[in-house]
Amino acid sequence: METIIDQYEKIVDYEYIHNLYEISKPLCHKSIVHINSTIYGGGVAEILNDLIIIMNELGIKTEWHQIKGSIEFFQTTKKLHNTLQGEETELTDHEKRVYLDNNRKNSIYNHVEDTDCVIIHDPQPLSLIQFYEKRQPWIWRCHIDISNKFNPTWKFLKNFIHRYDGIVVSMEKYKQKLNLPQYIINPSINPFNNKNRMLNQTEIESLLNDFNIPNNKPIISQISRFDKWKDPLGVIRAFKIIKKEFDCRLVLLGNMAQDDPEGFEIYNKILQYVKDDPDINIITAENSLLVNALQRVSKVVIQKSLREGFGLTVTEALWKGTPVIGGDVGGIPLQIIDGETGYLVNNIEECANRVLKLLKNPNLAEDMGKKGKEYVKEHFLMLRHLEDYVKILKKYVINYKI
Amino acid sequence: METIIDQYEKIVDYEYIHNLYEISKPLCHKSIVHINSTIYGGGVAEILNDLIIIMNELGIKTEWHQIKGSIEFFQTTKKLHNTLQGEETELTDHEKRVYLDNNRKNSIYNHVEDTDCVIIHDPQPLSLIQFYEKRQPWIWRCHIDISNKFNPTWKFLKNFIHRYDGIVVSMEKYKQKLNLPQYIINPSINPFNNKNRMLNQTEIESLLNDFNIPNNKPIISQISRFDKWKDPLGVIRAFKIIKKEFDCRLVLLGNMAQDDPEGFEIYNKILQYVKDDPDINIITAENSLLVNALQRVSKVVIQKSLREGFGLTVTEALWKGTPVIGGDVGGIPLQIIDGETGYLVNNIEECANRVLKLLKNPNLAEDMGKKGKEYVKEHFLMLRHLEDYVKILKKYVINYKI
Repeated sequence: METIIDQYEKIVDYEYIHNLYEISKPLCHKSIVHINSTIYGGGVAEILNDLIIIMNELGIKTEWHQIKGSIEFFQTTKKLHNTLQGEETELTDHEKRVYLDNNRKNSIYNHVEDTDCVIIHDPQPLSLIQFYEKRQPWIWRCHIDISNKFNPTWKFLKNFIHRYDGIVVSMEKYKQKLNLPQYIINPSINPFNNKNRMLNQTEIESLLNDFNIPNNKPIISQISRFDKWKDPLGVIRAFKIIKKEFDCRLVLLGNMAQDDPEGFEIYNKILQYVKDDPDINIITAENSLLVNALQRVSKVVIQKSLREGFGLTVTEALWKGTPVIGGDVGGIPLQIIDGETGYLVNNIEECANRVLKLLKNPNLAEDMGKKGKEYVKEHFLMLRHLEDYVKILKKYVINYKI
Repeated sequence: METIIDQYEKIVDYEYIHNLYEISKPLCHKSIVHINSTIYGGGVAEILNDLIIIMNELGIKTEWHQIKGSIEFFQTTKKLHNTLQGEETELTDHEKRVYLDNNRKNSIYNHVEDTDCVIIHDPQPLSLIQFYEKRQPWIWRCHIDISNKFNPTWKFLKNFIHRYDGIVVSMEKYKQKLNLPQYIINPSINPFNNKNRMLNQTEIESLLNDFNIPNNKPIISQISRFDKWKDPLGVIRAFKIIKKEFDCRLVLLGNMAQDDPEGFEIYNKILQYVKDDPDINIITAENSLLVNALQRVSKVVIQKSLREGFGLTVTEALWKGTPVIGGDVGGIPLQIIDGETGYLVNNIEECANRVLKLLKNPNLAEDMGKKGKEYVKEHFLMLRHLEDYVKILKKYVINYKI
């Protein structure tokens, strides 16, 4: 049976994998448990699924538990989540009780007594810690952008956060004022799943065909939720400038959060604005293979965000050797080195100019694409993510004293 | 914090609880893990939730794991489930691979090495066993009616079943030809959840009011899915006979399985048949408190099934001191002792006669209701369920040799 590490050997040096085994040795047979919640954050679960398997492949005895809860509990934690992202609604006392009581119940059948380290993901299971006699390091891994957190929620959660031994966030600017060690682990992509695995030309053509995307002229694309912060209308305006000088096709592929009425509004605006331009394709679909194909076939990928978390769509496109033009916000400048792996832009004109430059200079585009792919390989693939974990775990698990 | 056992002390003798502690002592600090799958069988998860908490309250170190899976995996296990209930569709080789591969993956991060006993629920995680070096007893707890199982599926699953140390089914007739110890654990109800907890008269009235059920004449009801095997049309015919002699109201409360086109057909037939009879209320709702209120307010509860699993709606109604008239099928005769806790019937006339007898003799009805409640208390509450588990676990966990 091929392991994930076996698959990796096809894309990285053996030296690198050997080193990973070496640095993991002190953790061999130590037991770690990851605890998250199923309901929200499919992306987190997707990453965890692979990470936890590789950790086991390295000999770290890694368990994965998911907390259970009533509908009311998950409604409450959704609210918690939203307020950590900046929404200003206070949790009622009843909601706080629901949150705590549900975690208390979960503590009854999640036995962590004999575990060497507990890693808690996101706020749903955060308060678990207060229902145990603490015998090992506990780490809180927060995947959310908490740079605009709503303070009353934070104050409530700090009661639990202070009991932890360390916290991990995704970017420097998510760090908080806390007397606790704080670490950064950037997100990563899995190069072997459907969104990122190799596709051959036949597969690509057939996917474009299935979604009625003609491949008769150079394609540029933005693959992103229909959300004002992703500025899809700005992308269309840039495209109209580009078209005056260079004949090409724009594809906007996105989905809408079901509970987001703004999404529909923006989607309708886009349709009105585009009217029946035969060179613009607007597609709403959730299809990992189509994302993959589109990122591969595009001459340039745009991610013209006005606000951004990390921007994994940038990572994905760079991984395919496609140069990316992105807004200079959030995690995008961590990935796009301006003029090297793509361009950072601050307005529509800049965006149009940079796209034109790449369309007119295919060699430059190819060169940038190659550099981008190398950059992602070095910094944003799953094994690097794993390496970060191993380094942090070693600090805590070896010689931990209660 | 009130434990579930604390709650029980209000309804059973202290002697009984003391005995439960006594028989559990040899299991104290033994570790047990239950593994089930989330997606199907909400009922199983509901029972497990409480059982696992009480097992921990008794000092048995009980873990609860749920296997994770791709959408394809859960489609495959749904098919597995349906074929175990009699549907005749063979699993393709691809589906078998999906099933096995998903369980293999789950075995990577479910570490059971140091556990004293593994209990696997239903077919989804059944094949897990072949991915471990077996170091402890494994028990398969099958909650499904497998008396009409499709043989090719059974043959496939037997590869894994044979590796187990024992299997537990819900009724005598679900036992299989196997050279393995087989045990029976009847289902049970939780007397403290919303479906079964005490309701006062004001709560009952307000629930009836919310669902527009007039309480102006004696109510009889059937609470059951709209499914031909529950014979809702037979109940309505019986009601029409009853009405000639005794003025009363019939309430049919049910829901429809979303993937069951037959359900809609039957529902429409019922509506046509009932037309606008003001004394018949047809209600489709999923509301545990309404079920509770209706079972309490009814003079007689009917469960005129033509085919039945165990029939937990009978248990629930009996628990409320309401006499039940049920079809003589499945698990119903285990609960209704004819002429004692209700009546068993085989046709519409019998059904009508028995209902009339109880409506005309409220003292008899009350007496039967009391006996029914006692019978459920003795046989079908959660603590009995727990006791059965403890007895089986003791056979396996104490002095187990690999």
